Amino acid sequence: MATPTRIGLAGLAVMGQNLALNIAEKGFPISVYNRTTSKVDETVERAKLEGNLPLYGFHDPGSFVNSIQKPRVIIMLVKAGAPVDQTIKTLSVYMEKGDCIIDGGNEWYENTERRAKAMAELGLLYLGMGVSGGEEGARHGPSMMPGGSFEAYKYIEDILLKVAAQVPDSGPCVTYIGKGGSGNFVKMIHNGIEYGDMQLIAEAYDVLKSAGKLSNEELHEVFTEWNKGELLSFLIEITADIFSIKDDKGDGHLVDKVLDKTGMKGTGKWTVQQAAELSIAAPTIASSLDSRFLSGLKDERVQAAKVFQSSGVGDILTDQIVDKKKLVDDVRQALYASKICSYAQGMNLIRAKSVEQGWDLKLGELARIWKGGCIIRAIFLDRIKKAYDRNPDLANLLVDPEFAKEMIDRQSAWRRVVCLAINSGISTPGMSSSLAYFDTYRRERLPANLVQAQRDYFGAHTYERIDMSGSFHTEWFKIAKQSKI
Amino acid sequence: MATPTRIGLAGLAVMGQNLALNIAEKGFPISVYNRTTSKVDETVERAKLEGNLPLYGFHDPGSFVNSIQKPRVIIMLVKAGAPVDQTIKTLSVYMEKGDCIIDGGNEWYENTERRAKAMAELGLLYLGMGVSGGEEGARHGPSMMPGGSFEAYKYIEDILLKVAAQVPDSGPCVTYIGKGGSGNFVKMIHNGIEYGDMQLIAEAYDVLKSAGKLSNEELHEVFTEWNKGELLSFLIEITADIFSIKDDKGDGHLVDKVLDKTGMKGTGKWTVQQAAELSIAAPTIASSLDSRFLSGLKDERVQAAKVFQSSGVGDILTDQIVDKKKLVDDVRQALYASKICSYAQGMNLIRAKSVEQGWDLKLGELARIWKGGCIIRAIFLDRIKKAYDRNPDLANLLVDPEFAKEMIDRQSAWRRVVCLAINSGISTPGMSSSLAYFDTYRRERLPANLVQAQRDYFGAHTYERIDMSGSFHTEWFKIAKQSKI
Repeated sequence: MATPTRIGLAGLAVMGQNLALNIAEKGFPISVYNRTTSKVDETVERAKLEGNLPLYGFHDPGSFVNSIQKPRVIIMLVKAGAPVDQTIKTLSVYMEKGDCIIDGGNEWYENTERRAKAMAELGLLYLGMGVSGGEEGARHGPSMMPGGSFEAYKYIEDILLKVAAQVPDSGPCVTYIGKGGSGNFVKMIHNGIEYGDMQLIAEAYDVLKSAGKLSNEELHEVFTEWNKGELLSFLIEITADIFSIKDDKGDGHLVDKVLDKTGMKGTGKWTVQQAAELSIAAPTIASSLDSRFLSGLKDERVQAAKVFQSSGVGDILTDQIVDKKKLVDDVRQALYASKICSYAQGMNLIRAKSVEQGWDLKLGELARIWKGGCIIRAIFLDRIKKAYDRNPDLANLLVDPEFAKEMIDRQSAWRRVVCLAINSGISTPGMSSSLAYFDTYRRERLPANLVQAQRDYFGAHTYERIDMSGSFHTEWFKIAKQSKI
Repeated sequence: MATPTRIGLAGLAVMGQNLALNIAEKGFPISVYNRTTSKVDETVERAKLEGNLPLYGFHDPGSFVNSIQKPRVIIMLVKAGAPVDQTIKTLSVYMEKGDCIIDGGNEWYENTERRAKAMAELGLLYLGMGVSGGEEGARHGPSMMPGGSFEAYKYIEDILLKVAAQVPDSGPCVTYIGKGGSGNFVKMIHNGIEYGDMQLIAEAYDVLKSAGKLSNEELHEVFTEWNKGELLSFLIEITADIFSIKDDKGDGHLVDKVLDKTGMKGTGKWTVQQAAELSIAAPTIASSLDSRFLSGLKDERVQAAKVFQSSGVGDILTDQIVDKKKLVDDVRQALYASKICSYAQGMNLIRAKSVEQGWDLKLGELARIWKGGCIIRAIFLDRIKKAYDRNPDLANLLVDPEFAKEMIDRQSAWRRVVCLAINSGISTPGMSSSLAYFDTYRRERLPANLVQAQRDYFGAHTYERIDMSGSFHTEWFKIAKQSKI
């Protein structure tokens, strides 16, 4: 290595290795470092094998930092939390004023803001950049959500634009998100939406399999077909793939052998907690988190199934006759309508946070950079982008004229699917909470008047009236007592 | 006042005044103090009017503290947060080693633990004591949840036992909850459950009114009738009252004039955030919070209703014929079954926190002290107490033999009500999420296998198998690609 490299990357687990190789492949010489040095050698080896890419490995942090051209930019891809602080500590001692560190992990946005402040005191710049796309995305084109110092973003904009997934007519899947921890926050909501998508697909699968008795072969065909239409997306595509794969350790399909326990890593939890904090209803995303929690209670579920099966609750299914073709069509529509609700919730979460923090985030632009590279990439995101292009102040995706029309067209099928599930004893928490969200949001008059009357009754919390302005309190108890005498 | 009083109370808003009068009425001389001194005089005046109760007012904190017998105990009833810190600061300078301060507000439990630590450094004791029952409860017998120093609890146990609501065959509605902030935490969950109860009642009202076309008079009769059976509770009772009250500013019933916007104060939000933190599904409580959020978007809802009504979505109701008597019976069962789910969630939240913090909370004992005084008081809580008496380690209320039987008996009605609501375009987020909770929890095999397969596909998160132990990873993408060639 004669001349300094353009950029550095620290943290060489699979995501880090792949992103480094991607950057090198796009023509930007890169230095790489990892505390466990075998990972460095492994990455250097891969760079050779994958086409003699301009990637240079270092075993000590000092020579790693010094190998990068100034102002230096180093991307970290290490576990969120303490490992990030540790890596910053290790690297920053060798860095100089104007250099920049980028955290590419799923970090809590407030941690990024705390670190950016500490870095600024040393004269260093900082970015929190969500990276989505899994291993494949990192290697061949992820969606990236950099937030923080705009100056730092400009240092590496040319790299990011080339490294990101490229979508025809739409450009690279990266943009400067906004100030502070906005990049992490937007990535967190992206993951919350991903939770919702996965749950809704799982429910579609469950209804088709349990009520519709579709085989894995039929499910493979259905999802392959769905992936040609409005549901076209990475998650539908991989679901089709999953149903095609045979068990390598026994008979039948692998998916049937996978234990029904779902893991999680924290971003879904944060999304739900932020929704409560911001007073935004996000029931579809919340139901996906709850479903993961309940999936984890496998032993309890097995016990509960026994308790209720012996009383016939498990057998509701038997006498229902289902038209497979019609069911497939209904479930497709239910899935799509529920998905619109879920994205409406996610987008409104981002807007509420943007207003709270003064981030000035552009919802349409976020939909654009999610069109490729990331886990939730879907043709559907183009419709969301266009909705916000039509009206950047859209209160809710549901009332965009095009989405509203889609909801209207699909609602009958949607209601049929949820009722079929209910009568079959199959839970569809995501679809039913999405439907409740729709029916609540489009309702001029809710029964919340009763709740407010109750609050005034027992706690003197006062209420407003529909026919005059002001705040009122009634002595409900006294009046009711008098009328009883 | 010749001799010192037995106890002091600071913070004389309605709750504080009423609790002080209650204590004095039970024969415990009490000193009272408030920063705005007119409240002190007001309370003293009330004590005279309500029977020359032994209550003594003070305008300055020093003489207030000095008027109390040692070791001194002072209950604060001020707004959670900074006002609590301010009051502690004002009072503690006059207090001596072994004295005790009790926070009777709805405080975040970690704030209580922080303050208890700071107080301990001064040699002072501290309790965080949730108080439920609204104004009436505070005056005539609340349910109280004291947590923190057991020594401090013992100072005033005799007072609390007399001041609390008294339930025949069950005793006073107070008990030492546990260490640390457990008293506040349990009160927070109590409030979360209260949110759920109120939402479920509102949904029952909505279905009966909107689908069943019941008048307020009929609703009054129905809730009065329900209050004689398994639903007997304070909230059902006041709901019956509410439907009986005429508008004093115009024609018709007051409830129809109340704006459908529900306020909130924080404990519901905390409950939902803690549920996510503790990995406990609490969808019924979460849906009540979401419903309050969406109720607040009145203007948006009016707009959305217009968008969808013009397309006929608002008119689904018309052609449904409903048997009123049958509907009332079905809704009662749906409400009861949903309520069991909601309490199951709340109880499991408390247990999870108790395990996390080592609080060793007794769930049956909590159900007992909620039987009277508090907002969620209900005959139903006796069944919960008995369930935990039968089996203190019960994994979930749903699988207690008696509750399981009740669920089985009610599930058909419950499914009918939710499907009727869905087909009528009425949202029942609480009832439908409760039903989804039930159908998820009692399911041996969930579609979570697909979600875990997806996670392994795009993120190499690995999976377990149903037929052998260990952790597995499959190269789904490669295998699927090969089979496509």
